[in-house]
Amino acid sequence: MNIEVKKESLRRLAIAQGHLQKVREMVEDEEYCPDIIHQSQAVQSSLKKIDQIILEGHLDCCVLANINAPKAKKEKLIKEIVDLFDKNGK
Amino acid sequence: MNIEVKKESLRRLAIAQGHLQKVREMVEDEEYCPDIIHQSQAVQSSLKKIDQIILEGHLDCCVLANINAPKAKKEKLIKEIVDLFDKNGK
Amino acid sequence: MNIEVKKESLRRLAIAQGHLQKVREMVEDEEYCPDIIHQSQAVQSSLKKIDQIILEGHLDCCVLANINAPKAKKEKLIKEIVDLFDKNGK
Amino acid sequence: MNIEVKKESLRRLAIAQGHLQKVREMVEDEEYCPDIIHQSQAVQSSLKKIDQIILEGHLDCCVLANINAPKAKKEKLIKEIVDLFDKNGK
Repeated sequence: MNIEVKKESLRRLAIAQGHLQKVREMVEDEEYCPDIIHQSQAVQSSLKKIDQIILEGHLDCCVLANINAPKAKKEKLIKEIVDLFDKNGK
Repeated sequence: MNIEVKKESLRRLAIAQGHLQKVREMVEDEEYCPDIIHQSQAVQSSLKKIDQIILEGHLDCCVLANINAPKAKKEKLIKEIVDLFDKNGK
Repeated sequence: MNIEVKKESLRRLAIAQGHLQKVREMVEDEEYCPDIIHQSQAVQSSLKKIDQIILEGHLDCCVLANINAPKAKKEKLIKEIVDLFDKNGK
Repeated sequence: MNIEVKKESLRRLAIAQGHLQKVREMVEDEEYCPDIIHQSQAVQSSLKKIDQIILEGHLDCCVLANINAPKAKKEKLIKEIVDLFDKNGK
């Protein structure tokens, strides 16, 4: 795993953990249900973003390492895949 | 918030927090990227399930409390909404 | 089904059918794969929007018809449910 | 585009078009709203499956064509990506 991907993922995971703890506290405090669900959905969006960062790193360092293609073209191909992944399920 | 909904949500949230901590450890240990993403997606599924439990409770106690309809019909209507919510985005 | 919901749904369904036909033509013409998938995802987004319009109408006319609550509060409750539905899976 | 991918995509697209026409007829006939939404969600699932077939073909023929790796490993990498894509948003 690329060091940048690792660092950025861990930074975002720490934030997501804080937000998930907040969801728990909102349930403990019996806050308004739709507000709790919104907070939970925000955590899910954060995790999906982390997935994409990890996938992009994976495609780059593990999948496409050996392609004999110009750098710009490889980057375009990777971006396209990640973009599709991003939009899936929306 | 219904006491059963609260209890079940907190129980599932505690498990989700454990699984999210596991994702973090997998990144720290630089485990295989697709395995990490699978673990993260499992956390997201758990949170989505919790959202549905909370939504169902909300529709029951807050939204539909005053409907002058037989219990069976109200339950059916709620189930239908939650079922749709469940399938959305899949 | 409310006449406005019916009319708006049919209008949007006709457009979605046109866009799905376009997806088919793109495959026939062997256009660039990511472009085809983007077009397909646009059709899926259109259908999801139609689902929300129909769900909102359903909650309004069938589920909440008998609630003895002020109009503004009912509208707020419906909007919240639809908003949650909208965000699910993104 | 691979001939098998093209053929299978067109076959599935024709079916999806038939099911979308059915959604339209259900709205015209004012059938029960949750039934209509279920039918619409089935169309969306079909389109998502078609997207995956096209993406898999794309990764195979366009992205990974030049990798100097054993066939089995390349297939495994592709399957993993498509599997992640499949689970995204569920």
